[in-house]
Amino acid sequence: MAEYTAPLKDMSFALKLAGMDDVAALPGYEEASEDLVHAVLEEAGKFAHGVLSPLNWEGDQHGAVLENGVVRTAPGWKDAYKQFAEGGWNGVPFDPEYAGQGLPWTLATACNEMWQSANMSFGLCPMLNQGACEVISHYGTEEQKRTYLEKMVSGEWTGTMNLTEPAAGSDLSQVRTKALRNDDGTYKIIGQKIYITYGDHDMTDNIVHLVLARTPDAPEGVKGISLFIVPKYTVTADGSVGERNDVRCVSLEHKLGIHASPTAVMAYGDDGGATGYLVGEENRGLEYMFMMMNNARLNVGLQGVSIAERAYQKALGYAQERVQSKPVGFKGDKVPTIIAHADVRRMLLTMKAYTEATRALAYYAMAQFDVAERHAEPEVRKAAAERVALLTPVVKAWSTDIGVEVASLGVQVHGGLGFVEETGAAQYYRDARIAPIYEGTNGIQANDLVFRKVARDKGAAAASCIAEMRETVKTAEGDLAYMGEALAEGIDSLQKATDALVGADPVTVAAAAYPYLRLFGTVAGAWMMVKAAVASAKAKAAGEGDPTFHSAKLATARFYITNLLPQHSGHLAAVTAGAGPVMDVTEDEFAVDL
Amino acid sequence: MAEYTAPLKDMSFALKLAGMDDVAALPGYEEASEDLVHAVLEEAGKFAHGVLSPLNWEGDQHGAVLENGVVRTAPGWKDAYKQFAEGGWNGVPFDPEYAGQGLPWTLATACNEMWQSANMSFGLCPMLNQGACEVISHYGTEEQKRTYLEKMVSGEWTGTMNLTEPAAGSDLSQVRTKALRNDDGTYKIIGQKIYITYGDHDMTDNIVHLVLARTPDAPEGVKGISLFIVPKYTVTADGSVGERNDVRCVSLEHKLGIHASPTAVMAYGDDGGATGYLVGEENRGLEYMFMMMNNARLNVGLQGVSIAERAYQKALGYAQERVQSKPVGFKGDKVPTIIAHADVRRMLLTMKAYTEATRALAYYAMAQFDVAERHAEPEVRKAAAERVALLTPVVKAWSTDIGVEVASLGVQVHGGLGFVEETGAAQYYRDARIAPIYEGTNGIQANDLVFRKVARDKGAAAASCIAEMRETVKTAEGDLAYMGEALAEGIDSLQKATDALVGADPVTVAAAAYPYLRLFGTVAGAWMMVKAAVASAKAKAAGEGDPTFHSAKLATARFYITNLLPQHSGHLAAVTAGAGPVMDVTEDEFAVDL
Repeated sequence: MAEYTAPLKDMSFALKLAGMDDVAALPGYEEASEDLVHAVLEEAGKFAHGVLSPLNWEGDQHGAVLENGVVRTAPGWKDAYKQFAEGGWNGVPFDPEYAGQGLPWTLATACNEMWQSANMSFGLCPMLNQGACEVISHYGTEEQKRTYLEKMVSGEWTGTMNLTEPAAGSDLSQVRTKALRNDDGTYKIIGQKIYITYGDHDMTDNIVHLVLARTPDAPEGVKGISLFIVPKYTVTADGSVGERNDVRCVSLEHKLGIHASPTAVMAYGDDGGATGYLVGEENRGLEYMFMMMNNARLNVGLQGVSIAERAYQKALGYAQERVQSKPVGFKGDKVPTIIAHADVRRMLLTMKAYTEATRALAYYAMAQFDVAERHAEPEVRKAAAERVALLTPVVKAWSTDIGVEVASLGVQVHGGLGFVEETGAAQYYRDARIAPIYEGTNGIQANDLVFRKVARDKGAAAASCIAEMRETVKTAEGDLAYMGEALAEGIDSLQKATDALVGADPVTVAAAAYPYLRLFGTVAGAWMMVKAAVASAKAKAAGEGDPTFHSAKLATARFYITNLLPQHSGHLAAVTAGAGPVMDVTEDEFAVDL
Repeated sequence: MAEYTAPLKDMSFALKLAGMDDVAALPGYEEASEDLVHAVLEEAGKFAHGVLSPLNWEGDQHGAVLENGVVRTAPGWKDAYKQFAEGGWNGVPFDPEYAGQGLPWTLATACNEMWQSANMSFGLCPMLNQGACEVISHYGTEEQKRTYLEKMVSGEWTGTMNLTEPAAGSDLSQVRTKALRNDDGTYKIIGQKIYITYGDHDMTDNIVHLVLARTPDAPEGVKGISLFIVPKYTVTADGSVGERNDVRCVSLEHKLGIHASPTAVMAYGDDGGATGYLVGEENRGLEYMFMMMNNARLNVGLQGVSIAERAYQKALGYAQERVQSKPVGFKGDKVPTIIAHADVRRMLLTMKAYTEATRALAYYAMAQFDVAERHAEPEVRKAAAERVALLTPVVKAWSTDIGVEVASLGVQVHGGLGFVEETGAAQYYRDARIAPIYEGTNGIQANDLVFRKVARDKGAAAASCIAEMRETVKTAEGDLAYMGEALAEGIDSLQKATDALVGADPVTVAAAAYPYLRLFGTVAGAWMMVKAAVASAKAKAAGEGDPTFHSAKLATARFYITNLLPQHSGHLAAVTAGAGPVMDVTEDEFAVDL
């Protein structure tokens, strides 16, 4: 099976486009020079290609297995994880004070993309660990950082996020896991958590669970949830692994995809209570989680990019090998491979254009995150924070839906062979399907976008983003003028849709949420592609860089603008259709034939 | 797991809309009264619900297995097949002279939809058998009909279609299986066939393979392929099962979905040659196959409808049960189920509207097929044949792509549970994925549409269909006038796209093929929905039928028209973008980062 190759040229280009130079100028990130960025990407690419990618298919077939109460990861997993930790890859964006590399999140994002492309099931472990590290970094005590964070950043231990319960999925206000205060300041944690990614595994000596639970006197709802560190093994005074805590994996889910990523049902306190350590203050757990969740949502959006890239590479490889039928208009003797067929090209270009557009947008959002965290000017930080908040649901939902659609096209390019599991394309189609669901379903992302990010500030953040998009229109001149014009039309649609939402009644806004998000993604993707085309045209004219790369970028941008962007009008129509078509249907009408 | 319920009200309605009354007036179909149609649908629905549906999930998990050279179907399969055959379900559309029921294809189509909805893996066996029966019905000798057809129609034996070889997939001109003439008029068949659905199984005493092969002196290419009957066991003079023929299943594919449908690699002639019997004349095999293939393509299109219906039922059931978060604007005490959430409604309505639109179009196309076969007037037959030829690639490709998209939405409605296999929604997502691939990939369907069905007659067949669509616009009056206006805009897009293709150079046509097909489906679906809305409004006003059904139909049509139809403009833009964006990309540019 063909292994994943990190698309280093496009990644470097997308980083630059996202403002990597500005990020490298932020206080504390001075080390992140162009040379260092390049070296990191190259090393990460080698690791993804040589270590993670070769385990992907076998991991899918083998899966993670629960045996006698212990989760065994797929063959090769443990060793790969050891190498991953030794390479320092867990620590890229974290504080050097606690074993981190102190590099920008933007750069970490490019690395993360590679792990998820090469092996999404594997990549989930560091992804969740990263979220847990972020929470402890921000809200943990110095002692907690020394005890847990350092070992999680170094990769000696891994972290998990325990939010969901059977009755508390999208609605975390329903969390029922109990936290009873002990006299020594610790808590007894009792309850069941589901869908816990890498809730148990055999790759490290310890696992640090972050668990949402309620103290007995906590208020109802979201304001009564606290956050606890619950290690699999308690930690002794000297920092080593101590006694087994009262937490165990009771079963693993049998899933459509990401088979090698154990998705655990976790039982806390079956023997009286697992020992938990409060993070921050009581009743503020959800607030802490949400801080981390924004970043996690960008990372899940990135998984959409990753799986799209992988599916594209696979489909391209097949299209370059397979010979079948003469293409229309072909006159020669030697029948070319199917990449010469117009419809195969249409599929490949759709895959390529969406992959590059979602990548550019995800990197851009993460660069804004770095700016929001570190810029010297409060005004600049605020604007960047607003931008990243606006784009987070778009990156999460648009990219992951695109991931599914691109993976589906990847199957199609292979014809009958695409449906045969050994080919590998089907795995991407299965794996991709989780990303629109977890870390807040895409419907929830759409609601987040329209209510919290657009309606709440009366469209101000959207207007600022739209204004910046219009600046890009002006830069598309000469041969690229048609791109600017098409982008302007897309922006007009986005503007109209935004105007329609601001001030509308909440039910109307809710009904329009998903098409609005899709419209936003489609236009923001075009914005990125036009920016890219302008940069590539300039570089090409100046004789800078790889001319084939730049002409490829111009070709992909062209396809996006002429063949994909025009969908904006359909999405706008759905946004402005109002609540009626969605809400004026009775339950009896839905079920009239059942 | 919730079982499938045949949507009898919508099926009856769609049959009527498709012109079932006219079909029942065709010579030979007089028996197909409204009462009989109703009785057949009711019985088929019971069988699908009670016998086929309960086997679907276990069949998926168990799969078909090759053991010691014999394929064993999943538990319960053999008995279900016996009941299916005894019920006469194989024979619905076939000649009573050969064990058939002599009923219209249109009615058989509604039954077929049920088999595929209830259990797609099971339904494939009768679907392929039906194709084989059609071929022998048309081109077999009287003796072949008595020997094979009768038992295939009765269900005592099953039939298979053996077209594909490793180097001959989409391009059947590459068929290399050999047929050597014996002195007694039979042939020795030697070669390998792949992707043979139910190529072997344990449900019947014999299997009748229809095999494409080449005689030694046959011309190269498509005009040198002959068609043979190759029974698994040769048949004795008295019609009973004789000796084992030299054909066997050498392996089964490990597939993404339809696990319980054995997809076989078949070896012919490993011991010197399988005995084959020529169908019709030598070198005309592909022509015979194509005759059957049109019908088979409609049936595969129908599978898209079937899986969409099943996915909808499943998602609706979950949405009516699951409680999670208060919907926007909800003020009451008891939090309703998630069907009250706007975005869940959007997903369910998208599923419902597409299911009903694709169903209506598939039934309509099949009714035109019946008219084309049986109408007394040659002119009417010709027009109907032209219409069914035009719509066949649309029904096949549009419905099956919709099937995948609807199944994906079905997973999404379930949230995390959708990704857990035991829920069942994931199976539809996996099963659905084959339909855009087999029986001519959707890319091939798109080429068939633009070249053979539109460009070849200079748009005449399309123009005739468009003219009829415009008649429907006129009938949308009063409250429904907005639907007529929106449909008219869609038709204008289709008209412009058609004009752009007629007379264009072939490469431009090929590049526009898929978006044109998608545009055609979107507009034809709207045509059907507006027809349906007009009929329902009339019936409601007249107090006829179930008022909830009619108001549901009006609601679904409204959603289709306001929220889905507007995509036509995006598709039109892709059609008129020309060949450049697709063709002006070098292979180096595709692979610039690999």
